[in-house]
Amino acid sequence: MSTFYARFLTRRAYARSVLCIGLDPDPALQPPEFRTPVSMVDYLLRIAQATAPYAAAFKPNVAFFEAQGPEGWDSFARLIDGIRRFAPDVPIVADAKRGDLANTARFYAKTFFETYPCDGLTVNPYMGMDSLEPYLEHKDRGVFVLCLTSNPGAADFQLRGDPPLFEAVASAMEKQNQKSGNVWMVGGATRSTEQLERIKTLAPSVPLLVPGIGAQGGDLASVLSVTGPNALVNASRSILYADPEGDFVAGAENAARVLTEQMRAQLVDL
Amino acid sequence: MSTFYARFLTRRAYARSVLCIGLDPDPALQPPEFRTPVSMVDYLLRIAQATAPYAAAFKPNVAFFEAQGPEGWDSFARLIDGIRRFAPDVPIVADAKRGDLANTARFYAKTFFETYPCDGLTVNPYMGMDSLEPYLEHKDRGVFVLCLTSNPGAADFQLRGDPPLFEAVASAMEKQNQKSGNVWMVGGATRSTEQLERIKTLAPSVPLLVPGIGAQGGDLASVLSVTGPNALVNASRSILYADPEGDFVAGAENAARVLTEQMRAQLVDL
Repeated sequence: MSTFYARFLTRRAYARSVLCIGLDPDPALQPPEFRTPVSMVDYLLRIAQATAPYAAAFKPNVAFFEAQGPEGWDSFARLIDGIRRFAPDVPIVADAKRGDLANTARFYAKTFFETYPCDGLTVNPYMGMDSLEPYLEHKDRGVFVLCLTSNPGAADFQLRGDPPLFEAVASAMEKQNQKSGNVWMVGGATRSTEQLERIKTLAPSVPLLVPGIGAQGGDLASVLSVTGPNALVNASRSILYADPEGDFVAGAENAARVLTEQMRAQLVDL
Repeated sequence: MSTFYARFLTRRAYARSVLCIGLDPDPALQPPEFRTPVSMVDYLLRIAQATAPYAAAFKPNVAFFEAQGPEGWDSFARLIDGIRRFAPDVPIVADAKRGDLANTARFYAKTFFETYPCDGLTVNPYMGMDSLEPYLEHKDRGVFVLCLTSNPGAADFQLRGDPPLFEAVASAMEKQNQKSGNVWMVGGATRSTEQLERIKTLAPSVPLLVPGIGAQGGDLASVLSVTGPNALVNASRSILYADPEGDFVAGAENAARVLTEQMRAQLVDL
């Protein structure tokens, strides 16, 4: 199987987009008829199918499925399977932010790379490099390491120290990527351009997954000015709930198209 | 509902033990007839029932269940339900090490405090205090924050900086616990006594969950000399697999009893 990065490049070239569509179904935001574990996935699949032409990747957040118990996990499986049917070349990144001792992390890797066969997984670096090994061993999968997140609380620990923690993570991930070639990093769009530039300087080989545009308020143009095309830029709620009371499929398709057109306008080689 | 800490104190007084029994079922270590999602829980429940007299808490690690798909989650539910039947006063801490944006963390809190009604949950502080809020709001549950973990890789980021990251986490958690009263911290038994003492100095009000004795090689007497009785000291594999090919129930009961007797010998007020 080719690497995640190779699949990303192929998909990016075909879709002419670096848009990652976050599939984070919050029952409180869903139309009333799409709030059960089963109907929730019907909603997501309709949106995924309509937005697939603009998707460089899909990123379901596992928390929303997990909270619904075993039925939620059945739904997660059905979502992956459904996307594979109509968009087999769009990589799926499970946003689960797992992190545990290597002995245990092997089981999380099994969960998201075998039980639910995703192409990539977000992970948390707090426990150190040995805790990431079980994911990194899967050379064909993308390992998306949290570096600098989009929430205000990121300042509490990630910005602490001189150089700050997120820079140490970035440096460690550059080193790791030189060895394994399957590392990505998460850097929030709500951070300053300088901070994202710092990450790119310290880890030039590591592509970025950038959440935080749309509902969280990050600016797409600023993000792209730093990352260039070697990135996935994520939007979730602003696509999923572009028009939840009206024609949610058309609303999502339109939101994804607008973002993609902005990307194409700014990234001339896309 | 009383606080986690109050329930811990009651249970500790009754059991005269600070032993936390980690329920981490690795199929490769289980006897062949106990490797399916269903039989795995039969194994765990027999061990939990035999060791309950010595248990101040049970701590199932969610990864081992999650890797088995929806059936694994059914098993996780059955494990919690089973323990409640024969040991309703022993707190159950879900070891899931979750961490995400507050919007998403609400769903993880729902998972482990409602869908699977546990008494406590381990969480990861990397994303900062706002990412922990949705757990901390549940004043009756224990929120177990990773501080200094037992693996060698902990040195990569947790020991970095001056003062090191784990000390910043400890200080932040002391402040938080003064407000919410439901914080615990995870400090590995494999770390130096000085490091555990540093955590206790910076966060005197925060009880510790200490993994790493037994299979990971941490020393019980050293740990207890720092924590005193205001702690949960965890053993997993050394109890679960004390005699996996023979009488695994008697082996587990014996291992738990030996550890508890060591605790009682050292902590004279237990």
